[in-house]
Amino acid sequence: MQPKQDHLNVELGERRYPIVIEEGSLGSMDLSPWVAGEQVLIVSNETVAPLYLEQARASFPGSRVDEVILPDGERYKTWETLNRIFDVLIDKQHTRRTTLVALGGGVIGDITGFAAATWQRGVDFIQIPTTLLAQVDASVGGKTGINHPQGKNMIGAFHQPRIVVADPLTLGSLPPTEMAAGMAEVIKYGLIRDEHFLSWLEEHMDHLMAMQPEPLKEAIRRSCECKAAIVAEDEREAGVRALLNLGHTFGHAIETHTGYSDWLHGEAVAAGMMMATDLSERLGYLNYNDSVRVRQLLIRARLPVNPPEGMSPVHFRALMQVDKKNVSGRVRLVLLRALGDAFVTEDFDPEAFEATLNHFCHPLD
Amino acid sequence: MQPKQDHLNVELGERRYPIVIEEGSLGSMDLSPWVAGEQVLIVSNETVAPLYLEQARASFPGSRVDEVILPDGERYKTWETLNRIFDVLIDKQHTRRTTLVALGGGVIGDITGFAAATWQRGVDFIQIPTTLLAQVDASVGGKTGINHPQGKNMIGAFHQPRIVVADPLTLGSLPPTEMAAGMAEVIKYGLIRDEHFLSWLEEHMDHLMAMQPEPLKEAIRRSCECKAAIVAEDEREAGVRALLNLGHTFGHAIETHTGYSDWLHGEAVAAGMMMATDLSERLGYLNYNDSVRVRQLLIRARLPVNPPEGMSPVHFRALMQVDKKNVSGRVRLVLLRALGDAFVTEDFDPEAFEATLNHFCHPLD
Repeated sequence: MQPKQDHLNVELGERRYPIVIEEGSLGSMDLSPWVAGEQVLIVSNETVAPLYLEQARASFPGSRVDEVILPDGERYKTWETLNRIFDVLIDKQHTRRTTLVALGGGVIGDITGFAAATWQRGVDFIQIPTTLLAQVDASVGGKTGINHPQGKNMIGAFHQPRIVVADPLTLGSLPPTEMAAGMAEVIKYGLIRDEHFLSWLEEHMDHLMAMQPEPLKEAIRRSCECKAAIVAEDEREAGVRALLNLGHTFGHAIETHTGYSDWLHGEAVAAGMMMATDLSERLGYLNYNDSVRVRQLLIRARLPVNPPEGMSPVHFRALMQVDKKNVSGRVRLVLLRALGDAFVTEDFDPEAFEATLNHFCHPLD
Repeated sequence: MQPKQDHLNVELGERRYPIVIEEGSLGSMDLSPWVAGEQVLIVSNETVAPLYLEQARASFPGSRVDEVILPDGERYKTWETLNRIFDVLIDKQHTRRTTLVALGGGVIGDITGFAAATWQRGVDFIQIPTTLLAQVDASVGGKTGINHPQGKNMIGAFHQPRIVVADPLTLGSLPPTEMAAGMAEVIKYGLIRDEHFLSWLEEHMDHLMAMQPEPLKEAIRRSCECKAAIVAEDEREAGVRALLNLGHTFGHAIETHTGYSDWLHGEAVAAGMMMATDLSERLGYLNYNDSVRVRQLLIRARLPVNPPEGMSPVHFRALMQVDKKNVSGRVRLVLLRALGDAFVTEDFDPEAFEATLNHFCHPLD
């Protein structure tokens, strides 16, 4: 069966690729047309493989399909784990015409994409994201990479997939915290450039959190459209793409501080977006009511709106200095001119920045 | 002093870059115009740094210059060594506007280029090649990478430098075996597409091996021109660029067999070119006299014309199977239709291939 497909395209010239968003696509869609050679390597993890590996294998009927199952979690987004993919590619004699398939969440997508970007200087890959975060964010845009012990995503490459297949039915198996973490990115798209979508989310958040399929599909579609439009405009993050980092500079500081383990990426981004919103209000761009709307929407999505206890302004300042959004040593932030209208700046009142840090960091006295 | 410069350009659209070939350019040329940010990291090795690091530092008068000195040798072209570069970039807080500088031979160029390709998903780099091999081959074309324990250059990326500065004076400090190894690639350019250059090399080989500056500069210039033209035509190695692999499929088998230690890359390529020449003769493309010319030129350049003793046809067959020039499981070779006219084929008489292997491999009875 060829499911009714809800297509959209990421427009990148000859690297243009489709995103398919459809319930039941995993397991029923024949992906052979997107496989150039005869070899496929599916990369998944210990959580996702038992649920979806067999369905994914069925999508490549004409290929020799190998697999590698990695441990689950952001702390495994390392060179050592990446090397396990290379070892299988060597052992199974995959050539430069092989296709890698990322079956899982953002970590699997990033690490598999980076393996594809660097195996024999670049081979094809396909994304089958199974978490909300990966469906709305990690699978669109071609960012791939691994972490350095001292910094997230410090090592990576831009490498675009041939196709992305997002099946909303896979979200049924997600733990609630992961669902919430993905919702942080969905909310982000509304905040940075689509006030109508933000209002739509306020209207439908309860349906979304109750996993109603039609609103869910709509939220994924609008998020992907938003990100795809931004990526098409700015593939290499020279300009507008930086807006996608709303909440990420604060958020990465939180993730680094907590060692990439206690906080999910989306949770850190949620707290970071709240901090960016607060700073935008202090700088006079937003009013009090705007901040309340953001806070309430995040809370309804079961997301944190404060950084972890025990994190001080000193921690934030130290960790934000080496963040890679940083140009020429100054802290560079995405702020909100209004809800639905983000901008990037290095030029803000440092006292307001300090006030935001102090407001969110409660000393442990 | 701004030296008189012998420029040529590698034409790659917006990634177009110049190659400067000039005695004395290292240490006298101001490279600041090719540095976008304020940070520079020079990557060199224990052999080259004592000779040229201070001169290289002087080329970046306006920048904050850090350095990392790696161990010398192909066996260090590994992830562990690459990670030492990343560690320094982290420790010294280099941002995505940093510029990496490769000061050394092909290994330093490959590993530094790969670090630049993947640090924060890609930063600028500059090549200052100090060996003949690196000047005529490794610094042109954007191939970067590291070795996997079971395969050479298995992990890498295409990443173009901003500028290449080749100073022939640095060749004065090269050991004779390294000079010969570089000459193998020079001869290769004559063999694959320039019979006039091949004749010129036959005329000047003794001057070149005696390190006479003018012929040396001419040989480097013509080699770079040849490679630059091929790369401009085929950046991603979809077609004509594959011709540059003359001798490399046999050669990589030799290097893998010897564990990347006893044989230099250029030596392995020389023996490999002789094997490809022999096969081309067996297939009726070349005559006996052509083979003799190739053999004599390689011998005059003090290069090996046979694989290492103890390497058998079984070894070659096993190692050539996983070579990445290989498409769909068949051995793919660069052969000579005539001297100065190479072509790629998978379609050759397997008996002639076996005869070549048997001819060059002397059983240890």
